[in-house]
Amino acid sequence: MSSTNEILPSQVTKATIITIGDELLIGQVIDTNSAWIAQQLNLIGIQVTKRLAVGDVWEEIWQAIDAEMTVADILILTGGLGPTADDITKPLLCEYFKGKLVRHQPTYEHLQVLFDSVLKRPFTERNQLQALVPDTCDVLLNQVGTAPGMFFKKQQTWLFSLPGVPFEMKWLMQHEVLPMIQREFVGKCIQHKTLLTAGVGESFLADMVSNYEQQLPQQIKMAYLPNFGMVRLRLTCSGTHEQEVNQQITAAFEQLKEIVAPYLVADQDISLQQAVANLLSQQGATLATAESCTGGYIAHLFTAMSGASHYFKGGVVSYSNEIKESLLHVHNQTIEKEGAVSEATVKEMVIGAIEQFGSTYAVAVSGIMGPDGGSENKPVGMAWIAVANQKMIRTKQLFNRFAREKNIQITANHAINMLRMLIVDNR
Amino acid sequence: MSSTNEILPSQVTKATIITIGDELLIGQVIDTNSAWIAQQLNLIGIQVTKRLAVGDVWEEIWQAIDAEMTVADILILTGGLGPTADDITKPLLCEYFKGKLVRHQPTYEHLQVLFDSVLKRPFTERNQLQALVPDTCDVLLNQVGTAPGMFFKKQQTWLFSLPGVPFEMKWLMQHEVLPMIQREFVGKCIQHKTLLTAGVGESFLADMVSNYEQQLPQQIKMAYLPNFGMVRLRLTCSGTHEQEVNQQITAAFEQLKEIVAPYLVADQDISLQQAVANLLSQQGATLATAESCTGGYIAHLFTAMSGASHYFKGGVVSYSNEIKESLLHVHNQTIEKEGAVSEATVKEMVIGAIEQFGSTYAVAVSGIMGPDGGSENKPVGMAWIAVANQKMIRTKQLFNRFAREKNIQITANHAINMLRMLIVDNR
Repeated sequence: MSSTNEILPSQVTKATIITIGDELLIGQVIDTNSAWIAQQLNLIGIQVTKRLAVGDVWEEIWQAIDAEMTVADILILTGGLGPTADDITKPLLCEYFKGKLVRHQPTYEHLQVLFDSVLKRPFTERNQLQALVPDTCDVLLNQVGTAPGMFFKKQQTWLFSLPGVPFEMKWLMQHEVLPMIQREFVGKCIQHKTLLTAGVGESFLADMVSNYEQQLPQQIKMAYLPNFGMVRLRLTCSGTHEQEVNQQITAAFEQLKEIVAPYLVADQDISLQQAVANLLSQQGATLATAESCTGGYIAHLFTAMSGASHYFKGGVVSYSNEIKESLLHVHNQTIEKEGAVSEATVKEMVIGAIEQFGSTYAVAVSGIMGPDGGSENKPVGMAWIAVANQKMIRTKQLFNRFAREKNIQITANHAINMLRMLIVDNR
Repeated sequence: MSSTNEILPSQVTKATIITIGDELLIGQVIDTNSAWIAQQLNLIGIQVTKRLAVGDVWEEIWQAIDAEMTVADILILTGGLGPTADDITKPLLCEYFKGKLVRHQPTYEHLQVLFDSVLKRPFTERNQLQALVPDTCDVLLNQVGTAPGMFFKKQQTWLFSLPGVPFEMKWLMQHEVLPMIQREFVGKCIQHKTLLTAGVGESFLADMVSNYEQQLPQQIKMAYLPNFGMVRLRLTCSGTHEQEVNQQITAAFEQLKEIVAPYLVADQDISLQQAVANLLSQQGATLATAESCTGGYIAHLFTAMSGASHYFKGGVVSYSNEIKESLLHVHNQTIEKEGAVSEATVKEMVIGAIEQFGSTYAVAVSGIMGPDGGSENKPVGMAWIAVANQKMIRTKQLFNRFAREKNIQITANHAINMLRMLIVDNR
């Protein structure tokens, strides 16, 4: 791009992300692509000032591109590149950038190999169309899929068009788009630091840090990101010199950590379960789960993280009472007398889990997540949690009033935070 | 709104969703709100033509609102209404709609009760600020949270400002916004019908339905929504008379179902696991899971659905080999000889699960999800799946090449589809 030298260091390079597809507008698909792209651009100091979703409608896409071409330095489009009739991004870009469709030989050959040897499916005429690209673009060869990426320039502005399949989009971003942007744009330096708190409300936290916030230098901004019982605090610092920015944000972050110390879970942007995993690894301790109402969700949260096999022994999803008895050795009379959702039952569940799995710690949950199954004494949203090691059991009763899926998530978060506090106290 | 009568029945009411918050632009938070809002608006025939995310920056928000006020009939804003300094939506709307901030007494009283009796936290000055609203808006009382919703009109356009907390946003949408929109706007009628296929690629499917698609009347559009081994096909039909639209889309949908019959999982927009749940309920059959590499994710997918307790007996997350032996009765020598990730092991796991849980069907999975733990013979992404009932066991080996979380999701989907086919064949 000829204008690179015209970008002064104090100007921030601005990017807009445009996602294309009706499914994003009728809410059938949740857009995770643009969050990921924004994250990656931010890491290299490019500021995403707008994210936009439009349907598979020629005029809407055209207008969105046309408007953003005048205000953004970089446009990233995803979607609408498939082989089917509702995918119109390629012909539209061809017309917008005044080109004509020509065959891109490397893409054609890549597709031929892909269909013949990997997919072992006929390389139909429809699939061959995927090798056509506007002659006004540079092709970004998509080595992990069928639709090629495209790169267009117009005056000062760069436009990348990428497939909407997350895996292919990410591959092209990492191998083509991000390196190109990093080479060409000298952006203003932006740094973020995030900490995680649990067990404190947003407005109470706001009062705690109010004085601190007012005294922050103007280049540092603070944001509150609440999420059911947890609040993330994020500092953002911008400047022209990386080292200076780093010093400023580090000093401010250390101060903030001290202020919120009683509720601090982690001084990184990690999940609650990652914080617990770190503590377990430090202690060389292990974990087992006994889940009724959370139905395997707690086990999933841990096993979705790489390295889980080092500390996670396993779990039982004891959805029926017989399984609570046969696999976790809960006494039949406990369930008869106190009920499956009771303090006595989760206590026996957590002890049973430690015995069965031979783990250092265990967590057990039993509750009613709804929408059905509640009663006057045990309403929907009620849950009992127990956490334990060989020496100690702690229990807690929760009342939530949300939809089933949220009740499951909140109950799981609460249980994991109780586990965290038990592990911290046994350090 | 004075212009209601000017909306001709053939005009579609257009809505734009604007989500506000830096966290959406740096990718820290995935935007699920706007997908949900779009879904709800679509259900009442309002077309969302654009979704937009902007940061906590005065000019950006102002420009986005100003631009959309001229093209949309309805604007829905979420976020930026909290009690903290980075929340600027309210003062901005106050200035934009030329008002001044005044206390809204019902909100003030609601907050007082909330803090005194429910939250049992001091009703601080900062929290009292939440009761201030521009005198140019109608307040939408937020009975489930602290930040009130606001409704502004300007000429032909309606603007709603809602809190970003999903639960509060949804409550206000359902109790205030959607009823208001439904009462006032006579939209064009839009209907969607979606079916789910599994085990067939998008382009192969496209060739199957190519003739059909070309012969569709112009008011019917078809979209492909691929999602790792599954493809949803969605028909959208628009018109002015509900009955006519319904007849047309129903006829086209029946035809489509016949064409894709060999791969059809469901003729509704449901998940694969919901299809399996329906089949189990029809048969009065039950299910158990034995998961190693998917770590409870399959159990979670089933138990996240209401009514799971009717057919889901439970599961074991057998992350360590000892647990495969002690809880699922896998023979020690099988693991020694064939390894934990082998056909022999998943076969014994699935039999063990049926025995332990006394279920009609079971599914077992063992694999290497990465990023570590792979070897030449058993690379990362390799997994064995077994599904069984009392009479029959089926197994399958998978090779995936994605990141851990995607490997888990795809493996789970595959396993659930195998389970579906076994249940269908035993009907």
